[in-house]
Amino acid sequence: MGEFDLIKRYFDRPELRPGPDMALGPGDDCALLQLPDNHQLCVSSDTFVSGVHFFEDMAAHQIAQRCLAASVSDLAAMGAAPAWFNLCLTMPSANTPWIDSFSEGLAAQANACGISLAGGDTTKGPLSISIHAMGCVPVGQAITRSGANVGDVIMVSGTLGDSRAGLHIMQQNRSAKDYLSKRFWNPTPRLHLGQWLTGKATACLDISDGLVQDLGHILIASGCGAELNLLDLPLSSELRTHVSYDQALDYALNGGEDFELCFTLPLDLVAEAKAYTQSQNLPLTAVGHISAELGCRIWRGKKSPYAPPQGYQHF
Amino acid sequence: MGEFDLIKRYFDRPELRPGPDMALGPGDDCALLQLPDNHQLCVSSDTFVSGVHFFEDMAAHQIAQRCLAASVSDLAAMGAAPAWFNLCLTMPSANTPWIDSFSEGLAAQANACGISLAGGDTTKGPLSISIHAMGCVPVGQAITRSGANVGDVIMVSGTLGDSRAGLHIMQQNRSAKDYLSKRFWNPTPRLHLGQWLTGKATACLDISDGLVQDLGHILIASGCGAELNLLDLPLSSELRTHVSYDQALDYALNGGEDFELCFTLPLDLVAEAKAYTQSQNLPLTAVGHISAELGCRIWRGKKSPYAPPQGYQHF
Repeated sequence: MGEFDLIKRYFDRPELRPGPDMALGPGDDCALLQLPDNHQLCVSSDTFVSGVHFFEDMAAHQIAQRCLAASVSDLAAMGAAPAWFNLCLTMPSANTPWIDSFSEGLAAQANACGISLAGGDTTKGPLSISIHAMGCVPVGQAITRSGANVGDVIMVSGTLGDSRAGLHIMQQNRSAKDYLSKRFWNPTPRLHLGQWLTGKATACLDISDGLVQDLGHILIASGCGAELNLLDLPLSSELRTHVSYDQALDYALNGGEDFELCFTLPLDLVAEAKAYTQSQNLPLTAVGHISAELGCRIWRGKKSPYAPPQGYQHF
Repeated sequence: MGEFDLIKRYFDRPELRPGPDMALGPGDDCALLQLPDNHQLCVSSDTFVSGVHFFEDMAAHQIAQRCLAASVSDLAAMGAAPAWFNLCLTMPSANTPWIDSFSEGLAAQANACGISLAGGDTTKGPLSISIHAMGCVPVGQAITRSGANVGDVIMVSGTLGDSRAGLHIMQQNRSAKDYLSKRFWNPTPRLHLGQWLTGKATACLDISDGLVQDLGHILIASGCGAELNLLDLPLSSELRTHVSYDQALDYALNGGEDFELCFTLPLDLVAEAKAYTQSQNLPLTAVGHISAELGCRIWRGKKSPYAPPQGYQHF
């Protein structure tokens, strides 16, 4: 099967276009996309490498779901509405059952996120996936990392550390189907929460490299520090059952890839945010506050600061 | 060096932002981009794999120049003005002299094309590069592949086959510096011509897989056929000196990666197009015309049609 047949059969399908319409979709030199009036384009690119970001022998639909969710999560972190994505798929060979499964997983996640495949590329080489995710945000409404203020409450959505535990389970058993494994291969981008936070949160990002490391980006960009309360970190009952409490706390601080949102909120908006997330059945937890002293201090109760190991290092 | 230091040092430099401004550039979850009023976004994504699309032991600046040119060429083919690009760079290790050279080549090509780096990703893995090129085109002015009409003249910019010959030269000698090799590692996206053709050309694309194969996309999309005159194909004197005439013709038909534009133009606009390209010192050649009978017939003088070998197959 040539590249063009492959694209036509697996990637030019209506199931892959649940999001906003396109002036011109896959099949020409470029896709043509029309933004709504008074909106800016939000764009993020991520590459996922076999053996680094996913197991080569995971089910192809799981690989697709995981990669697209991780990409779209960056749109959530800016408060953008997902619109379109381009997919660059590099594969050692055109293995049609594998591509069929990949395409199914991609369609499932595209539908869950309301994002349309606009184009991309298929090439021959070691298995890896690059996704360019595009969203729209009203002019001036995007939530950057640089607006946190002293006194803001540091909040996180969902529970932390699940994905790291799921990774360990899948290292033993690729076809594990439990809650924690699913949090690894099928994370949920917090798109509704991100959009709700526009005009409210002072800074926001998604947790991909671990809470401590990612919160550090907000602190540096905003020129402030943080006091984190270790015992307030939200842990799922599944994680608490699976590992010791100290291990769970370490996963929650440094695990990464939960793709939950970490954001800073003025104190007087916390109740409103909690009411909103409750209506969405999404846990929302205050885990600390922004302080003037640079750096991040992690408190275990009233005891002396806790020194965490480092988050994920890419090289 | 961590991922963030690496990005700061090599990719967050003013030399990489010669194009339109950005509301928010590299360093946050997403870049924020503002399109001019009444414009559509034109996007194209391409992946370049070491050993498939370039030699792993080419100079890193050459790899960067080649990949960015090839990506931006898709914008030229739509008649779009280049604006921004995202870069996903996957490398086995953070080899700083290599990255330094890559960054220099990227800046040189970004400046030549007037396109700004908006963001991207660096990951560890087998060397490959994915580029997401974004441009702007006035609403309704993009040149697609589907508008060719019977009687239109088929035109190509520049000369064809040089890049394939350059590839062969570099297979023997990676540091070759001759004209043909440079056409391989430093092709010129025909950006000015592409924009000039908006509202004039009925169909356009850039030649990446070979004239015959790429023209075939126009014919299928437009529901028509073509008569190509083999002896009219534009060949550089360098190519003519380097290989036999028949070899040169084969490269010109099937070589690909010259990134010249192939477009269809109503007969009454041909003189105007020639005058324009002459003012730009760019050869422009009529190589055939669009006919009603489906398929592409290649004529060697008045002799019976010539059957070409197939263009580049990706799998």
